[in-house]
Amino acid sequence: MKMLGVLGGMGPLASAEFMRQLTLLTPADRDQDHIPTVLWSDPRVPDRTAARVHGGEDPLPALVRGIRGLEAAGCEAIVIPCNTAHGWYEGMREATRLPILHIVDAAAAELRRLGVNEGPIGLMGTSGTLAMRLYQERLGFECLTPDAEIQEGFVMPAVGLVKANRIEETYAPLALVARGLHAQGASAVVLGCTEIPLGIAAGPELEFPVVDTIAALARAAIDWAKA
Amino acid sequence: MKMLGVLGGMGPLASAEFMRQLTLLTPADRDQDHIPTVLWSDPRVPDRTAARVHGGEDPLPALVRGIRGLEAAGCEAIVIPCNTAHGWYEGMREATRLPILHIVDAAAAELRRLGVNEGPIGLMGTSGTLAMRLYQERLGFECLTPDAEIQEGFVMPAVGLVKANRIEETYAPLALVARGLHAQGASAVVLGCTEIPLGIAAGPELEFPVVDTIAALARAAIDWAKA
Repeated sequence: MKMLGVLGGMGPLASAEFMRQLTLLTPADRDQDHIPTVLWSDPRVPDRTAARVHGGEDPLPALVRGIRGLEAAGCEAIVIPCNTAHGWYEGMREATRLPILHIVDAAAAELRRLGVNEGPIGLMGTSGTLAMRLYQERLGFECLTPDAEIQEGFVMPAVGLVKANRIEETYAPLALVARGLHAQGASAVVLGCTEIPLGIAAGPELEFPVVDTIAALARAAIDWAKA
Repeated sequence: MKMLGVLGGMGPLASAEFMRQLTLLTPADRDQDHIPTVLWSDPRVPDRTAARVHGGEDPLPALVRGIRGLEAAGCEAIVIPCNTAHGWYEGMREATRLPILHIVDAAAAELRRLGVNEGPIGLMGTSGTLAMRLYQERLGFECLTPDAEIQEGFVMPAVGLVKANRIEETYAPLALVARGLHAQGASAVVLGCTEIPLGIAAGPELEFPVVDTIAALARAAIDWAKA
């Protein structure tokens, strides 16, 4: 069976949840049926939103160091359970011969799997992901995003709280923003930052289709491993 | 900050849970406060109990391959979130200059943290772990273990069901065995197989001190990283 490489640690809880979803979504009767995986969990990668929005340190060198580690370990494909890091997708792609499964393509496949064929789609993500238009230019659906005040006042603080292990506090603001996008006409909401599904999982299920980009990426990885 | 190596995949869900506990138990305000970690999750390692009890394939070569991968990645210490694999502890220790934090020592520290100073201690584990006397000869407490019929009829099937992602089904038999050990006089019960805390977490909390060896090993790793 092929070895999967996970470039993670952005954040580390999302990477752990990716490993959990990868395991639970794999059809298996015993350990040996699961997918061999190396997780490179390096939380020291410079903050992606700070780099793009506030002129912070470039994360690409740290991302490429992780890719080198996964190559050396014998991995044959790479997934990155961090949406914002995909803003450096071209730079990473040019740095390796391994395929990198794109998280936005995984989200698009998940929308199809959920039977969502018409937009607009609500999009929640970091300010970096929204500013780089990662979803708007690749998902294949019109995207509705929160107003700037909502983004900075509710979404970004919640993302930070998940990274600080304060998960329970984030359900209320994140669910409020998701419901707001649904009320504005979104047929589904993509949780396009891997911290967001962790917060949304801490409370009651939402009443409309939601794409968990951690689980979506895990399904893409399983499809790759089984192909 | 030092890089931690996790020799995992035995089983993969226990490794994912180790990464989750490692993250949640680390004091952190942001990604960059968390511990850089490489998880080598290789579920192809030959079954440890089969090797020890039924003359199955020796897992040591696969374990040492994983250690070589973690060394190459730059890790400075190794933890193994699989109790039974510690039956090959000496062989692994001889194969590397890196320290390997022993899971039984982590369980002993957790008993102290919980205020348990007197035995006997109930011990649940795989038939391999019990037969190799990993806990009986290292924990520092008298250990009570289930009868052979209970071990083969309840504990081992539950461990197998966790590896097959059928977690919910395992709470009832595992909790029954733990409560039986407590009724026989155990002051605490060590869940000395990393599949067992996953099953026990699927239902109501037990009424007596319980050592989750996944969380115990995560605490030992955090102590190492912060030292």
